[in-house]
Amino acid sequence: MTAAAPPPVIVLVRPQLGENIGKAARAMLNFGLTELRLVSPRDGWPNPDAGPAASGADNVLAEAQVFDTLADAVADCTTVYATTVRKRGVTKPVLTPEAAAREVHASAGRSAYVFGAERSGLETDDVALAHKIVTVPINPEFASLNLAQAVILLAYEWSKGVALASPPDVPLDPPAPHGELEEFVQHLVRDLDKSGYFFPPERREMTLRTLRTALTKTGWSYNDIRMMHGIVTALGRVKKRQ
Amino acid sequence: MTAAAPPPVIVLVRPQLGENIGKAARAMLNFGLTELRLVSPRDGWPNPDAGPAASGADNVLAEAQVFDTLADAVADCTTVYATTVRKRGVTKPVLTPEAAAREVHASAGRSAYVFGAERSGLETDDVALAHKIVTVPINPEFASLNLAQAVILLAYEWSKGVALASPPDVPLDPPAPHGELEEFVQHLVRDLDKSGYFFPPERREMTLRTLRTALTKTGWSYNDIRMMHGIVTALGRVKKRQ
Repeated sequence: MTAAAPPPVIVLVRPQLGENIGKAARAMLNFGLTELRLVSPRDGWPNPDAGPAASGADNVLAEAQVFDTLADAVADCTTVYATTVRKRGVTKPVLTPEAAAREVHASAGRSAYVFGAERSGLETDDVALAHKIVTVPINPEFASLNLAQAVILLAYEWSKGVALASPPDVPLDPPAPHGELEEFVQHLVRDLDKSGYFFPPERREMTLRTLRTALTKTGWSYNDIRMMHGIVTALGRVKKRQ
Repeated sequence: MTAAAPPPVIVLVRPQLGENIGKAARAMLNFGLTELRLVSPRDGWPNPDAGPAASGADNVLAEAQVFDTLADAVADCTTVYATTVRKRGVTKPVLTPEAAAREVHASAGRSAYVFGAERSGLETDDVALAHKIVTVPINPEFASLNLAQAVILLAYEWSKGVALASPPDVPLDPPAPHGELEEFVQHLVRDLDKSGYFFPPERREMTLRTLRTALTKTGWSYNDIRMMHGIVTALGRVKKRQ
């Protein structure tokens, strides 16, 4: 294998059963993925039910990292893929596992595959944070994939490209890790709050989601984002100098 | 796709746990396979543990057929694929799930995917009866696929050839005509000029070019750009209101 893009991180958001976390770890390791991140697992972490279900993928569990929020969990990732079948009202590109795997292999940075809780899946706010959506094309009359099955299909598709991965085309100015964009969003929202932009207050959440989607798709690099910080700060001076 | 070959039959040879038969049925139906055949299931058939594990794939279980021998189970199949990772001394073509699926779709007759018992897998006599072997390319240091996972991977690869349901076309909010973006750039630059952002003046042109590049790559839609106009206007009020 050549100097390839790093393997994707698997992020489980609010997983409920330790058993399912273990099964997901097993599915990952079957296809060579080892980096597991957990966002607010319902029953805390470590979870004694995870080990037996992992059938030997103990290292994946031992090295799993726990985060409070999805934003924290993907802070070092340049592209975040939300795996979901529900996408009403969400305007993001939708990819198959195959197409997503091709992108992950071609990426200069680190990618994350994000999975929702067992019953409810990803929430709208989780999806808003992602760059793209991955949907497994499934029998529309019986769409009953469990967590570990969704993980294994994505891991399997990724593994196909491992042998083939050639040195990625490094874009001149690659997209910044998500954490950089997140900081910019915080900066912007702080100033917008001061300006009374979010009005009426009931619509704040929805407007914020729309704004986040617009900023997530920009593909801005570290330098772009630095410039945008400067612009937001500068714009705050406009009226004062008039 | 040509005049479709019949979907492959899934044959489980001497399955042990009813639960695993149910999970296999669920995995099948997720990707549109419905014909299940059981060869000498250890605990007889029907098995009360199968239903709950099938999570609604009850028809697949209800219509499952039981046979005494693998030869009987595949009597009407023109090509028999043995799924196994062990192939010492077996001189048969070995295919990936992908390649097997292509063959199944191209076949004039009916194909069978044959799976062995949970722990022991297929025996040499079973494999001898098959035309070809299908092996899932798996992490050699952790090859721990269970029955339902093996079934789901083969069913998934088969389903790709059917166009069962590709991810629905989500009406993406398309990028706005360039004129819209240009107007926004003008608005932004007007305010930035007022704020003294472009300093020193000699660098104005270069900074402007960088800014235009960052904004051009956003892919913002008409609605995104309208929002950004509002944001720039709002930011101009930040300091005044403090």
